[in-house]
Amino acid sequence: MAIPQTNFNPPFNITRASHLVLMAHDLRASRDFYTEVIGLIVSDEDSGTIYLRGVEERGHHSLTLKKTSGEPVCECIGMHVFDEEDLDKAKFHFDRTGVPAKFVDVPFQNRTLRFSDAMGTPVELCATMQTQPRVHVAVHTHKGARALRMDHYQVLVPDVWAAAKFYMDLGFRISDYLVIAGTDHTIGTFLYRKNNPWDIVLLHRSGPCFHHCGYVVESLYDLVRGLDTAGNVGFGECIEHGPGRHGVDHSYYTYLRDPDGHRTELLLPAVQIVDRYDEPVARPLDPHSTGNRWGFPPPRSWFEEAATFASVPVRKLADEGEPLTLEKYLGTKHWRRTREPLRQSA
Amino acid sequence: MAIPQTNFNPPFNITRASHLVLMAHDLRASRDFYTEVIGLIVSDEDSGTIYLRGVEERGHHSLTLKKTSGEPVCECIGMHVFDEEDLDKAKFHFDRTGVPAKFVDVPFQNRTLRFSDAMGTPVELCATMQTQPRVHVAVHTHKGARALRMDHYQVLVPDVWAAAKFYMDLGFRISDYLVIAGTDHTIGTFLYRKNNPWDIVLLHRSGPCFHHCGYVVESLYDLVRGLDTAGNVGFGECIEHGPGRHGVDHSYYTYLRDPDGHRTELLLPAVQIVDRYDEPVARPLDPHSTGNRWGFPPPRSWFEEAATFASVPVRKLADEGEPLTLEKYLGTKHWRRTREPLRQSA
Amino acid sequence: MAIPQTNFNPPFNITRASHLVLMAHDLRASRDFYTEVIGLIVSDEDSGTIYLRGVEERGHHSLTLKKTSGEPVCECIGMHVFDEEDLDKAKFHFDRTGVPAKFVDVPFQNRTLRFSDAMGTPVELCATMQTQPRVHVAVHTHKGARALRMDHYQVLVPDVWAAAKFYMDLGFRISDYLVIAGTDHTIGTFLYRKNNPWDIVLLHRSGPCFHHCGYVVESLYDLVRGLDTAGNVGFGECIEHGPGRHGVDHSYYTYLRDPDGHRTELLLPAVQIVDRYDEPVARPLDPHSTGNRWGFPPPRSWFEEAATFASVPVRKLADEGEPLTLEKYLGTKHWRRTREPLRQSA
Amino acid sequence: MAIPQTNFNPPFNITRASHLVLMAHDLRASRDFYTEVIGLIVSDEDSGTIYLRGVEERGHHSLTLKKTSGEPVCECIGMHVFDEEDLDKAKFHFDRTGVPAKFVDVPFQNRTLRFSDAMGTPVELCATMQTQPRVHVAVHTHKGARALRMDHYQVLVPDVWAAAKFYMDLGFRISDYLVIAGTDHTIGTFLYRKNNPWDIVLLHRSGPCFHHCGYVVESLYDLVRGLDTAGNVGFGECIEHGPGRHGVDHSYYTYLRDPDGHRTELLLPAVQIVDRYDEPVARPLDPHSTGNRWGFPPPRSWFEEAATFASVPVRKLADEGEPLTLEKYLGTKHWRRTREPLRQSA
Repeated sequence: MAIPQTNFNPPFNITRASHLVLMAHDLRASRDFYTEVIGLIVSDEDSGTIYLRGVEERGHHSLTLKKTSGEPVCECIGMHVFDEEDLDKAKFHFDRTGVPAKFVDVPFQNRTLRFSDAMGTPVELCATMQTQPRVHVAVHTHKGARALRMDHYQVLVPDVWAAAKFYMDLGFRISDYLVIAGTDHTIGTFLYRKNNPWDIVLLHRSGPCFHHCGYVVESLYDLVRGLDTAGNVGFGECIEHGPGRHGVDHSYYTYLRDPDGHRTELLLPAVQIVDRYDEPVARPLDPHSTGNRWGFPPPRSWFEEAATFASVPVRKLADEGEPLTLEKYLGTKHWRRTREPLRQSA
Repeated sequence: MAIPQTNFNPPFNITRASHLVLMAHDLRASRDFYTEVIGLIVSDEDSGTIYLRGVEERGHHSLTLKKTSGEPVCECIGMHVFDEEDLDKAKFHFDRTGVPAKFVDVPFQNRTLRFSDAMGTPVELCATMQTQPRVHVAVHTHKGARALRMDHYQVLVPDVWAAAKFYMDLGFRISDYLVIAGTDHTIGTFLYRKNNPWDIVLLHRSGPCFHHCGYVVESLYDLVRGLDTAGNVGFGECIEHGPGRHGVDHSYYTYLRDPDGHRTELLLPAVQIVDRYDEPVARPLDPHSTGNRWGFPPPRSWFEEAATFASVPVRKLADEGEPLTLEKYLGTKHWRRTREPLRQSA
Repeated sequence: MAIPQTNFNPPFNITRASHLVLMAHDLRASRDFYTEVIGLIVSDEDSGTIYLRGVEERGHHSLTLKKTSGEPVCECIGMHVFDEEDLDKAKFHFDRTGVPAKFVDVPFQNRTLRFSDAMGTPVELCATMQTQPRVHVAVHTHKGARALRMDHYQVLVPDVWAAAKFYMDLGFRISDYLVIAGTDHTIGTFLYRKNNPWDIVLLHRSGPCFHHCGYVVESLYDLVRGLDTAGNVGFGECIEHGPGRHGVDHSYYTYLRDPDGHRTELLLPAVQIVDRYDEPVARPLDPHSTGNRWGFPPPRSWFEEAATFASVPVRKLADEGEPLTLEKYLGTKHWRRTREPLRQSA
Repeated sequence: MAIPQTNFNPPFNITRASHLVLMAHDLRASRDFYTEVIGLIVSDEDSGTIYLRGVEERGHHSLTLKKTSGEPVCECIGMHVFDEEDLDKAKFHFDRTGVPAKFVDVPFQNRTLRFSDAMGTPVELCATMQTQPRVHVAVHTHKGARALRMDHYQVLVPDVWAAAKFYMDLGFRISDYLVIAGTDHTIGTFLYRKNNPWDIVLLHRSGPCFHHCGYVVESLYDLVRGLDTAGNVGFGECIEHGPGRHGVDHSYYTYLRDPDGHRTELLLPAVQIVDRYDEPVARPLDPHSTGNRWGFPPPRSWFEEAATFASVPVRKLADEGEPLTLEKYLGTKHWRRTREPLRQSA
């Protein structure tokens, strides 16, 4: 099919992926994970909610955790628009195009518009929230991976191009999209508004489901310090995938699971992408390859587990493909053996 | 059982693990692997042999690759003694104690004494070899992980304490030893002469077999640059295990397999260990844990594949234990699932 | 005085600082400097011109060097607009407001509009240039500091706010501005369009003069590898200032001088700055302090030497202030001395 | 003159430079400096003394600070011998050769022998001290540069070869020595016992005086994190020299001054040096060059300021040479100027 086209004169100005809200069973355990390992700063908290931000963030929060005794779902993902006026333009646009949208009250945020995208994903928009000082230079107070800022989120959707079109009509551009090599089957796409290649990543699977959010760290050393800290404070087995380096032109990754299983990617600063001549690039993916420059393929859990969005039904795909999981990879991997295995494992 | 005691007045002065000789099917492929990915320097080569060294090494070679059309075995491991005179003392000692030992001619090495240790492992000793300039500061000429120096090797042996005793009688000290928690079953030990915790590592398995050699890299960046290069030049799937951080007090690791399956560990500089009060430390190992501070446990191949030594029979152990492999780990790992898996994998 | 206000509905859309043109006496020496030390890639060259780009840049060039036997001036600085249409809007705007502007032919660039800003600085705008592949992942081919991309330039101007107003009318925002503490004397300001705090930096001095351009490197390791390489290939004394860390919230810096004395800053990726609530921040500067978080103040040459722009007269300031130079700092610095100096230096 | 020869059968076995004792005016200020910036751990303290160690050190202390209201002198430098028995051998040797030596009581150390070397430098020897756990893997508790271990100290002496001979008779080897190029005038030498190129460094100047001690850090990131912390907690101007990279084959350096002016070098792990064929290397030094691979030459204070040893008279040299100081360097440094300086500085 033809790739949807970006609307370069969008009805209102979304500037970036900015925040998200996750439910958690045990706020204390989750707090430890995000402050000690990821290195987020607590901007505010009470018995039922914790507001967290990266060390360079001025916005009050990029991650909100809310206590639940039910399913640890994702309440919504959030984006910034540039101006308060953009919220009114957005409301007008959504009303006109039949997208359910209403203003809601969110602590520490100014006017906030909640809508559902083409897949049903709940998204909220705000232009401003309370601000906090950037503390990225106060390195002596930082913990773990000292994550700088929330960068993007990945959402599983049953129809990548329909979901992408929704955002491209709102001005999002595509940096890359993944197609099964030798076919025209698109299995994912990277969409952006700010000057790096992703604000929202869409992956072809049953959904909509929240797969992960990505926090940027300053260096490999910070990433590893986060992992060392994880090992030291009881989260040593929180790593689901990585460290490794993504294929195509992407960077290093490590995926961690929080106490509720919510997934966070730690990544390095990405390339800058601003110019008109940065056209969408097709990335053929060999389903029998790891897809990485180096590092194992993801384990099955990475492909199969994700959080639902609150009260949003999941449309199940009959066929989610047969990605190369770590489990399969290990079963087929053959080093040139220098001798017969000494024994057969159980 | 009682741990053997170090002989602090050894019959001759071994200073360090220094070199090894591996057989290879395709010298060109192996050369690429060691020069481009590991970053070794070719000191000399002809149609049948390549002599390699790390960028800071003054000795002519720490790794010799010899062409074979047979099994890619390990010919021997090598150690330096301090002085030529130590070779004569060694010969005298081995003759007196009934250890087979004879002088052999080895290109680029001065007088070289070959002997078999208590497990039958072929070992050669030399005091001096031709020297080469250290080129560690010529960073603009370095490739891959720019490995600095060969640091240690790991040998699989069917009787860890018998093997260790042989070396402790020669002055080796123990830094750590691994015991199955709650038992007195020792599954490995780290022996050293130079000022870091390992020159030769012994692991309890069928053997003797050569498991890996370890090259020190300067920083995590160099390690990752080696892996990036691997991905770029066609060795992206050479990683068998890692990156991760070992348990106990040890450092970061990545294990790579060369084109013949020979295994190299890249590691960071270790702690300094010199003093009389650095007594052997027992490290209880929970067989159901990864044994790592962070990072997956090793895959089955890491436990089961190793090179035999040329013409040395392998004594098979009836029971090699049931280490926690990556395969098992993945099968039992349960993240707190945020929803039911979307489908059951094949 | 009141700080000028950003025009959030600018007459056309400048997206970023993108390139510059410098004159050089000895192209071969300059080529060595920029390719071996900074790590730029040659996109094209002939006997009189070299076109260079950072390893992640898709645009054909961010630095053009032209051979001269005269003064090694700066020919112009360059910016990208988003669309070809923006060039027409720019021409219309400049004509209407009396700013000299004309279309010029520049190799490898599409339509290019050259104008002079409020200080007389020659600036060129283009929407597109020929593209090149990003090669940032081909790390095994990279050299020196493997600079990623041109990020910003600094221009000395005799009237900071007048110069700033010109750009703020075109949509530029202020991240920070430097004022002499206790006064309202502004000595510099940081202006941006893309999502980090600077595209063009204005410093209050005689001018307009080109002070430096800044290239982003991926990590401290890359920066240091650039300096190691400099030392190895004959540019060991090219460092004028640093490494150090800027004051306020800014990052690490090192300033190098090329064979003609042109100055390049190597810097790490900066914070993200996108949101409406990122208002200009005044940064009071104590003229008796180094102004740095750590590291020496700049030497006198850093304050006093800069390239003129081709055929643009310099307006000399009667008073350029008395910045704390390294020379002064060393003369007044007193460590608590643990004994009398052993002798008096010459 | 002929270089003294190492005695490879020394009368007793010194293993390494291990500790030192410095006097300080304000223990609280010094404590802050060494714990927050350098990252040392306090092993014990009372109102008059603080005992500090690096994060990987097992010995109770490598740096002892004692409160004084007088001169902040260096009380002594300390070395480890391998065995208690070596202390008796040392006493016997010193008595026999007329070197003043006596056993002293030092808290947390076992038997300790204090002697004066050929220049009068007070040195103490011990085989064992109380031990502490290594905490190098507890990275989440580390501060500043998280220094790993004390590595070496540098002493100014009026007769380098006489001082060196004293230690070479005790088994020390020379890695390098610095000679003024074109002369046979030796201005410094690097002596070692453990497996890296320096335990004690001797520099030709009036003395004996204590110039600096060197602590090893794990990576450039740790070094920079120490400097960032320095800037954040009020020690931003403690840097006297660096960061830079030494000439010859040596590594990166930064020299800091503590609140009393005592000097600490932070350095990266050095090369391994063990083998018989590692003969002393002469390093000709051009007195008109910086002597560095990159980075400024040291300021005058680095050459002229050092701590005396308690009650040890300083033998003043009539001529300490004319080293290239940063002050001189700046005065003579000429970049190819791209235009006349805009004005003459005061």
